[in-house]
Amino acid sequence: MPTYRLDLAYDGTGFRGLARQGGQRTIQGEVEAALARTLRAQVATVAAGRTDAGVHARQQVMSFSFDKAIEASKLLNSLTRQLRPEVVPYSLAEVDEGFDARRSAISRTYRYQINNAAIPNPLTRHSEWHIAEPLDVGAMDLGVGAILGEHDFASFCRASSTGGTVRRVLAAEWSRTHQVTLAVRANAFCHQMIRSIVGLSVDIGRGRRRSGDMAVVMTGRDRNLAGQMAPAHGLILWEVTYET
Amino acid sequence: MPTYRLDLAYDGTGFRGLARQGGQRTIQGEVEAALARTLRAQVATVAAGRTDAGVHARQQVMSFSFDKAIEASKLLNSLTRQLRPEVVPYSLAEVDEGFDARRSAISRTYRYQINNAAIPNPLTRHSEWHIAEPLDVGAMDLGVGAILGEHDFASFCRASSTGGTVRRVLAAEWSRTHQVTLAVRANAFCHQMIRSIVGLSVDIGRGRRRSGDMAVVMTGRDRNLAGQMAPAHGLILWEVTYET
Repeated sequence: MPTYRLDLAYDGTGFRGLARQGGQRTIQGEVEAALARTLRAQVATVAAGRTDAGVHARQQVMSFSFDKAIEASKLLNSLTRQLRPEVVPYSLAEVDEGFDARRSAISRTYRYQINNAAIPNPLTRHSEWHIAEPLDVGAMDLGVGAILGEHDFASFCRASSTGGTVRRVLAAEWSRTHQVTLAVRANAFCHQMIRSIVGLSVDIGRGRRRSGDMAVVMTGRDRNLAGQMAPAHGLILWEVTYET
Repeated sequence: MPTYRLDLAYDGTGFRGLARQGGQRTIQGEVEAALARTLRAQVATVAAGRTDAGVHARQQVMSFSFDKAIEASKLLNSLTRQLRPEVVPYSLAEVDEGFDARRSAISRTYRYQINNAAIPNPLTRHSEWHIAEPLDVGAMDLGVGAILGEHDFASFCRASSTGGTVRRVLAAEWSRTHQVTLAVRANAFCHQMIRSIVGLSVDIGRGRRRSGDMAVVMTGRDRNLAGQMAPAHGLILWEVTYET
């Protein structure tokens, strides 16, 4: 059956997350409803990266199969009209039949944004976590170096994580521009992993924990070691890559 | 009577602009209602810079007088609790009795933000104007050089502008970072002036008009020459300065 790849960005503020849930307003639910209206058929989608309630995406990827011929540009326009401005589908193309947005993905990149200014910024309150207290970003970045490579991230993952808790982190960097930002890329992430790493990083940045604690907590493989999770709304699914 | 200065930032998305209007949700209306609840008295405020519906502020300044003693930090906390997260009051201080947030202001700085990427960004849709077509920012900046100094801005101002249409522009610069941004500072602005200058600048950036047209339109002193106004939601009141 012909298979399609849909790339989209969204503001997750008004959604109960990505995954379809009966009766809740979710990204997948809205996308599938729009597909159904246009194609006059139920279409099941698969998504590359999990985003919880309040988490955004700069690049999310979804795949779906459909047995009739689709004019991609026409369908993309129809989806755009139905979903914007909160959800912005920006690319739709037929791909190899074996393509699966989740299983074919080699890596995912997320970004977590902190506004570390004294005064909260009302304009970015849905996409930044405001922390007025000065953060030692150098220490935070030193800490996060520990997660590079393949590890068991049980300490950072929800107990019920699917597919175990071993993941391979390819890049992770805290930096301060106008924001304090973590960019982290892995083959895949388990549930709550990034927000837990951010929570611990911020404790390091506040001076409450030391950079070395990142490795200690990780190797402990115990969820209780990680401490408080960061809120969802600073997290953005940034990019997904595939074999070309 | 003791006079107070209140500095605040806000997301203008959900408001019918700054100025109090019976029955409408406005910034001034909300601030005065919060003051009334805390002080148990009607207090009239004066604001430094006009912001229309959908326009935001990084730094707005308001002044008001009140005949009883006020503990500033306590009142600020009370206002913050009532107004956040859309409106963020961040400074409150007693000032000289002659202080008037509007008349005492020496200059105002606004910033207009354009997202000039191919794909709209759902996260910044309330604070950036999305233009997919590539813009010649050099030409736009060359054009806007014409407005520096004291001029009659009748071409850019709503016909009914109060206080005439002569203003003195101290700085105006288009630049491209991740955004295309106009920063413009003047002793004061007349109504719709900035959004008209942005509209014309963008026509220059699109190659529909030439940089020299900024001066031509300005010296024409005719509202009809300026063309289309830019939408409100890219505009942010950035800063207000006073004699110290």
